[in-house]
Amino acid sequence: MRFSRYFIPTLKENPADADTMSAKLMLRSGMIRKVAAGLYDWLPLGHKVLKKVENIVRDEMNRAGALEVWLPVIQPKELWEESGRWQFYGRELLRIKDRKNNEFCFAPTAEEMITDLVRKTIKSSRELPVNLYQFGTKFRDEIRPRFGIMRAREFLMKDAYSFHADDKSMDETYKVMVETYTRIFTRLGLKFRPVEADTGSIGGSFSHEFMVLADTGEEQIASCPNVTCGYAANIERAETRPVEPAANAPAALATEEVETPGKSKVVDIAAAMGVSANKIIKTVFMIADAQMVVALVPGDSDLNVHKLQRHLGAKQIWPAKDAEYIAAAGCDVGFAGPMNLKARVVADPLVMSIVNGVTGAGKKDFHLKNVNPGRDFTPESVADIRNIRPSDPCPRCSTPVAFFRGIEVGHVFKLGTKYSKAMKAEFLDEAGNAQPMIMGCYGIGVSRIVAAAIEQNNDEWGIKWPVQIAPFQVIVTPANVTHDESRLAAEKIYNALLEKGVDVLLDDRDVRAGFKFKDADLIGIPLRVTIGEKSLARGMVEVKRRYEAQATEAPLDAAIEKVMETLQALA
Amino acid sequence: MRFSRYFIPTLKENPADADTMSAKLMLRSGMIRKVAAGLYDWLPLGHKVLKKVENIVRDEMNRAGALEVWLPVIQPKELWEESGRWQFYGRELLRIKDRKNNEFCFAPTAEEMITDLVRKTIKSSRELPVNLYQFGTKFRDEIRPRFGIMRAREFLMKDAYSFHADDKSMDETYKVMVETYTRIFTRLGLKFRPVEADTGSIGGSFSHEFMVLADTGEEQIASCPNVTCGYAANIERAETRPVEPAANAPAALATEEVETPGKSKVVDIAAAMGVSANKIIKTVFMIADAQMVVALVPGDSDLNVHKLQRHLGAKQIWPAKDAEYIAAAGCDVGFAGPMNLKARVVADPLVMSIVNGVTGAGKKDFHLKNVNPGRDFTPESVADIRNIRPSDPCPRCSTPVAFFRGIEVGHVFKLGTKYSKAMKAEFLDEAGNAQPMIMGCYGIGVSRIVAAAIEQNNDEWGIKWPVQIAPFQVIVTPANVTHDESRLAAEKIYNALLEKGVDVLLDDRDVRAGFKFKDADLIGIPLRVTIGEKSLARGMVEVKRRYEAQATEAPLDAAIEKVMETLQALA
Repeated sequence: MRFSRYFIPTLKENPADADTMSAKLMLRSGMIRKVAAGLYDWLPLGHKVLKKVENIVRDEMNRAGALEVWLPVIQPKELWEESGRWQFYGRELLRIKDRKNNEFCFAPTAEEMITDLVRKTIKSSRELPVNLYQFGTKFRDEIRPRFGIMRAREFLMKDAYSFHADDKSMDETYKVMVETYTRIFTRLGLKFRPVEADTGSIGGSFSHEFMVLADTGEEQIASCPNVTCGYAANIERAETRPVEPAANAPAALATEEVETPGKSKVVDIAAAMGVSANKIIKTVFMIADAQMVVALVPGDSDLNVHKLQRHLGAKQIWPAKDAEYIAAAGCDVGFAGPMNLKARVVADPLVMSIVNGVTGAGKKDFHLKNVNPGRDFTPESVADIRNIRPSDPCPRCSTPVAFFRGIEVGHVFKLGTKYSKAMKAEFLDEAGNAQPMIMGCYGIGVSRIVAAAIEQNNDEWGIKWPVQIAPFQVIVTPANVTHDESRLAAEKIYNALLEKGVDVLLDDRDVRAGFKFKDADLIGIPLRVTIGEKSLARGMVEVKRRYEAQATEAPLDAAIEKVMETLQALA
Repeated sequence: MRFSRYFIPTLKENPADADTMSAKLMLRSGMIRKVAAGLYDWLPLGHKVLKKVENIVRDEMNRAGALEVWLPVIQPKELWEESGRWQFYGRELLRIKDRKNNEFCFAPTAEEMITDLVRKTIKSSRELPVNLYQFGTKFRDEIRPRFGIMRAREFLMKDAYSFHADDKSMDETYKVMVETYTRIFTRLGLKFRPVEADTGSIGGSFSHEFMVLADTGEEQIASCPNVTCGYAANIERAETRPVEPAANAPAALATEEVETPGKSKVVDIAAAMGVSANKIIKTVFMIADAQMVVALVPGDSDLNVHKLQRHLGAKQIWPAKDAEYIAAAGCDVGFAGPMNLKARVVADPLVMSIVNGVTGAGKKDFHLKNVNPGRDFTPESVADIRNIRPSDPCPRCSTPVAFFRGIEVGHVFKLGTKYSKAMKAEFLDEAGNAQPMIMGCYGIGVSRIVAAAIEQNNDEWGIKWPVQIAPFQVIVTPANVTHDESRLAAEKIYNALLEKGVDVLLDDRDVRAGFKFKDADLIGIPLRVTIGEKSLARGMVEVKRRYEAQATEAPLDAAIEKVMETLQALA
């Protein structure tokens, strides 16, 4: 492709409303343009990257035996009512009425549609398993679209759904999909990690997220540095391992009321009481399925609402309102303790190991010290209900875990029979009985990968594409196109690379060389071949990797060989 | 691909609500499944064809220098208001409100979006021309979705838009796009024809439609059989050439009132009066921009409302209601003549050449004979306002035209400055003055092509795919998979063809041979290689084209060569 015939409207300045590095660089390099909140045009340069990602994903899905389909993005309400999600999905679901007043939604995902298709077409276990996937436009009406295309409202997703007659078959496909995703992200040239994850609103029993590693990532992951263990999990999901009780624990002292006027924050109470935050027993008031539940966690830990919900088997859970707190605690907000509550009480194991702890006294402006679980109060149940903390022991091997950040780009789920039961997607087993199919689902955020790759690979000058998904692998830059010999040498190299199947851009614009170099760095082409007047007079051209500051020279007649070698090394 | 691992849920019976051959065959062959009115799942077999079509279209668009982009399907109302189409598009436009009550539509087309993109990024004539295209999901909320995916509500379209600084550049690109479309439909293996067309609701000044020829097509085309002329046009667009007045026209007679009780249809009046239909002057009452207009056409011709609208320069036009007719004519519906009307009167030239014609008498149950235009009435204007008829003279060369039927699958338009003026998509010319860009647009109904190809190529047994877009080029069918030698020979041929890059399906199912043959014919694979026990014993296999009733034998060791030769011949 010739730069002069391409359409790369770069920007000199960072757009004011770009809130992440990838959004800035995608807008500045002319990959995308904003249309409205969370809606973006993909311009030729951005689209080219998107297609390269899509093609690698498709190739590996096909290799795994998955079959590509294409489902409507406009989905009938009736199917979402069958699964129960029409009511529960909330306002992220874009609801639509057609001219006849029939209701639909714009696909945020496709469990209902695919389950409907399979139940209408598959009747026998001999036709199972089947793994169907599609690339489709999805829409989620985010309340606050942000981070450019990372959390756009409209986006490109690869979603796959598998159907099985038994758990063994489900497990096999799950394993194949984890391997397939590993191959995909490896081929994309990204540093990534699969981690155990929470199943969230899609439901199901077990899942892994694939994270592209980036310091700017939204997701926090607890990871075991012990390589023989290799445990990694989203902190929403990571289990905690209770600390062993210390051998020489201090003796339990008598409780004592202390006046703490106006102090209800952990940090203030700890200072007032002269104890560390981990001695404080936090009471968190929640409403689970219309019932008051008080969760107890140490002052230096965060309640994990998902864990609490799972422990309670609750359908819905949210924080109690102040009036509900006051009714259950019999005191003002901030001063409740675990005693004398009109509520079910659930404690984290770490709370149970606190000796001489501090908690609210159950009356305004007072706290209690020397509170001892088991002696002073007994919770209804004890369960892992907190987020893991850095340096907590690995739940598998006890090595202290490290935290890192990532961007979720893929997700594999075991869905179980949630949808097949609700929607009667059944097969006849060998005895002729109808059984619900077991389902898995496997998503990849195709457009998000483009942004994640940039978050992982950039510097002050612009993007540093992995060669596998770079819009062009090589840019050929004659420093001065009005110099005939330079231009002709550049054309010759350009054509030779095209013939070798290299995806190459010829910067044939009549502008200053420095301007061209800046553009090449901004759009992030992995390899630049520069033809300068002086070096050409010596029969040499320059070859420079985007990752390296220094260029190397190569003889003009060996330039192609040098480029091909370097590309090989980059891949 | 092995049949046993593929997902082809064929149906034995024609689905009750399939209203065309292509809909029947796509549903029966398991290419698609209906979700709701005008909404279809594309299953693996159908999706494979769709992708083959898409890839040929993409390849040729790239070759023509067009650049691929990807625009949101959710488009802001504000842009449609700028172009004026929010108000005028009508109920086919699916309108949507997001959670913040902002209004959007689901893209039926993308003139507004692309014009917005280009006005934000291109400022100078040096950056023109540019031709941007995309493959996108489109939605048109048809009042009566029908013909399967042919007139579905959701469909896949390739839409391209070009921007130019002057007419010369516009004309060049238009020519390139007509050539590109010609290459595309040739490569798709379809019989097609470009025809002059009306520009319809998208607007603009000039356009060609690409028609896939099929007797079942919705569109009627008038075509000149004179090959040196080659004129072809949609009958909505085709000009008519006035017949020369006959040299020995009869003398004009005196008008005479005839009682025609209850007769208001052309056929009844012609019979009552003893004249042929072409002697009758039909009066058609229309409301154009709130004004009454009576159009006069011969009794054997149809009024062309588009032509009348263009002639009047009217923004809106529709048939008058009975009350409006009666008010303007002063008589009951069915008995008006061209005289004494409270209306503008427009006559087709063919009406003006009628001698001693028949028309309504302007009072109930009476007609007039021996009416002579010019003597008895003078219309306000005379203009081509009728549809061309079979055997009418070609407007270019006078050869009587033939009619044929087709399915519109592509459309190229000159849009002029309709959108660029309304939306201020301007560039600075050399004198530094802002000028509106000149635009062209170029659509291809990608999903519709799949149905059109089937309408053109089918028989009582099923689909007969052109090899270029067949889901598989070859099917290898061991008649009996429990016969080891047959199975092994089939596997060997299958693997050898895969290695040669042939898209091949191995029917490895343990079912009767006749059942397999029926499926192969239904899904329309162009070439079948059958391995039968008896012929294999003689060292032979069968090679059969889908188009031919008879198979030919080939020696087992020459089977691959034979297949490759036949594929070559089919392409």
